[in-house]
Amino acid sequence: MASYTYPLAVLITGAEVLDGRVLDTNSQYIAQQLSLYDLQPSVMLKVGDDIDDICRALEFLDAEMIIVSGGLGPTTDDLTRDAIARFAGVELVRHEESAQRLEEYARSRKRTLSVNNMRQAFVPAGSEVLANTRGTAPGFLVRRNDVRGEQLIFALPGVPAELRAMLATYVLPQVTARLGATALFRHSFRIFGLPEAEVGLRIERIGLPPQILVSYRAAMPEIHVVLKSAITLDEAHIEAVRRAIGLDNIVSEDIERGLEQVVHELALRQKVTVAVAESCTGGLLGSFLSSQPGSSAYLQGGVISYSNEVKQKLLRVERASLEAHGAVSEQVAIEMATGARICTGAQIGLSITGVAGPDGGSEAKPVGTFYIGIATPQGTQAFRFFFPSFRARVRTFAAYSALDVLRRALLGLPLRNETPDGR
Amino acid sequence: MASYTYPLAVLITGAEVLDGRVLDTNSQYIAQQLSLYDLQPSVMLKVGDDIDDICRALEFLDAEMIIVSGGLGPTTDDLTRDAIARFAGVELVRHEESAQRLEEYARSRKRTLSVNNMRQAFVPAGSEVLANTRGTAPGFLVRRNDVRGEQLIFALPGVPAELRAMLATYVLPQVTARLGATALFRHSFRIFGLPEAEVGLRIERIGLPPQILVSYRAAMPEIHVVLKSAITLDEAHIEAVRRAIGLDNIVSEDIERGLEQVVHELALRQKVTVAVAESCTGGLLGSFLSSQPGSSAYLQGGVISYSNEVKQKLLRVERASLEAHGAVSEQVAIEMATGARICTGAQIGLSITGVAGPDGGSEAKPVGTFYIGIATPQGTQAFRFFFPSFRARVRTFAAYSALDVLRRALLGLPLRNETPDGR
Repeated sequence: MASYTYPLAVLITGAEVLDGRVLDTNSQYIAQQLSLYDLQPSVMLKVGDDIDDICRALEFLDAEMIIVSGGLGPTTDDLTRDAIARFAGVELVRHEESAQRLEEYARSRKRTLSVNNMRQAFVPAGSEVLANTRGTAPGFLVRRNDVRGEQLIFALPGVPAELRAMLATYVLPQVTARLGATALFRHSFRIFGLPEAEVGLRIERIGLPPQILVSYRAAMPEIHVVLKSAITLDEAHIEAVRRAIGLDNIVSEDIERGLEQVVHELALRQKVTVAVAESCTGGLLGSFLSSQPGSSAYLQGGVISYSNEVKQKLLRVERASLEAHGAVSEQVAIEMATGARICTGAQIGLSITGVAGPDGGSEAKPVGTFYIGIATPQGTQAFRFFFPSFRARVRTFAAYSALDVLRRALLGLPLRNETPDGR
Repeated sequence: MASYTYPLAVLITGAEVLDGRVLDTNSQYIAQQLSLYDLQPSVMLKVGDDIDDICRALEFLDAEMIIVSGGLGPTTDDLTRDAIARFAGVELVRHEESAQRLEEYARSRKRTLSVNNMRQAFVPAGSEVLANTRGTAPGFLVRRNDVRGEQLIFALPGVPAELRAMLATYVLPQVTARLGATALFRHSFRIFGLPEAEVGLRIERIGLPPQILVSYRAAMPEIHVVLKSAITLDEAHIEAVRRAIGLDNIVSEDIERGLEQVVHELALRQKVTVAVAESCTGGLLGSFLSSQPGSSAYLQGGVISYSNEVKQKLLRVERASLEAHGAVSEQVAIEMATGARICTGAQIGLSITGVAGPDGGSEAKPVGTFYIGIATPQGTQAFRFFFPSFRARVRTFAAYSALDVLRRALLGLPLRNETPDGR
């Protein structure tokens, strides 16, 4: 019997990918999600917004399951639904529920729905509509039959957040079930504050057995390590890795839970209240601490003390300290953290002051130098960090370092690790 | 006469791309370099290290010129040279110069050259060797002739630094010469605050001549529109698009300059000082305003007033206002903006208070409702916005809306557009 050339393929559509305006990250994301089940697409293809090209691509891919991303939006260059309908030999039909959803969406915004907008409610006849909970354009699943059996074409939006949610809800369950794939045994570590090379060295020294694959990923500013094995992972091996990394450097052993989430859960559980005082990060730490729903239970707020005037006026940093030590100093970090506590009434004050660059560095305090201060009812401390990089990365690393100091404080761990300058 | 389907295509080979371990950036780099010559590949394809799959891909791509990247290294899964030789119907032959280079390389490192290593000196018979100045594996150019004329297949390494150097030296000159690349004229608009569908509708209504291609991109939270044409873009057409979008909705007409950058430049140029008061965004607006080097010239700092206590204590929001109108209200936004000005001494205070969700919404103020307040020496105002989405997107949109209100204030434009709820 005839059969498909490949079990699984990916098709990305969109002019913005072909002309280099956009870096396609959806391909990798899809591949990564499939790899959790030891599956991978045999071929990945990108074409522009052109019906002929998309049809020709679908013909070529010749896979039992094709995951298509992009071209479902409301503009005239969104042609994926037209192309898939033509490829499947069916008409586009209006999906009433999606049409109503679009109408409600427009009504709630007091708009009239344009013809273009309504195109999003059309899907290939006979297809199964895949609801989009994160955006307006629904996806769909076309089941096509020929002598080689049933072919599944999943059409998903190109917006990453929308694609990701829909991949998990609709695509992965069907693909894995159909291919009889089961997840590999795996154990993950999310690490903060150790450089990737150091993590690698420490794990290599253990001498794990060859059936355990170790993969590393620099998920700035964290490092992720995943152990994978086709047979059960021995707890003794997991424990050896844990000790090699250092217990206090492990943010979590759940790939879905990062530093923001871990700190959020600890603060909620311990019923503490927190306030921030931010200089070079300008609010980034506060935005991290408020990113999770329910963060108002512990986050009181804080002060963005970009100027020295604000440091003095709102945080009561002493002018003498600024003059004697400079704004980027242990003493000022301590006074900022104390100030954040006092002016907000929070139990814990967390401060950041540093040189994010590219200018403002000196020999004593080069770009990438920053201090994290923490004030609690038990006392106040500040620590110097050094992470030389470009501005955005220094700022992110500084805000993460403050989150990590808070995590360590809440867990009663040493407040910083021995290689605090990160990677 | 028969001809090739496409002028130009890209083929990426390598298992590490298909299983998600590596993010392929070579595709985008090649596309970007081609776009400098106003060219783009019609299709981009990724396959694993498999001779059949690579041959099938080359057949499918059916382009006059194909740029292949990856699979030229020394390991047994580097099969691109074998596949291209088979596709071209020739043998692999040893290239003496490359063999000598490999031998010298090994000798200089006191190593013996393995058979696998020597595979790198083999190229398809009749091909032109492309020297690799950055690594060991040379590339090659195969010229294949059939009834459709000459086809060029460039084989380059997958290591980005090697690919980049060889693309510039060997590929771009030949590709551009052969396609007689004519410069496309282009004009870009970056837009904030209008939904993508609305932008599309407004531009369609103009009825631009068909030689002007219009591409749209939702670069959340901005919308980017690019007009392209093979002949000079008529200023009258650009102006028609400008008016259709609405002058005040255009953040910039330079694809490299977004809202953060534009506000930064305006604030510097006008020598104003700015402070923020943030509730639901928790510091995100401050982090945007401090993202550019040199922002300390205007950003004084501000208050993250997550709790009502902080709103009252640091920003002097009246308890009566909180009780009568709620924390998410025009009145509180006004008092927060005023408070930010006063407590920091800045000329302009910018505030955000809203319901980021997923909880905390009500019928009167559903999730996605927020107020932006602005206090200047001339007076204070606040505006209601509504952008229902998931938490992270509501917060980003709210912070961008505040940046946009500031941009409009600095430019003397109406402080909000007529469809402020975005897409």
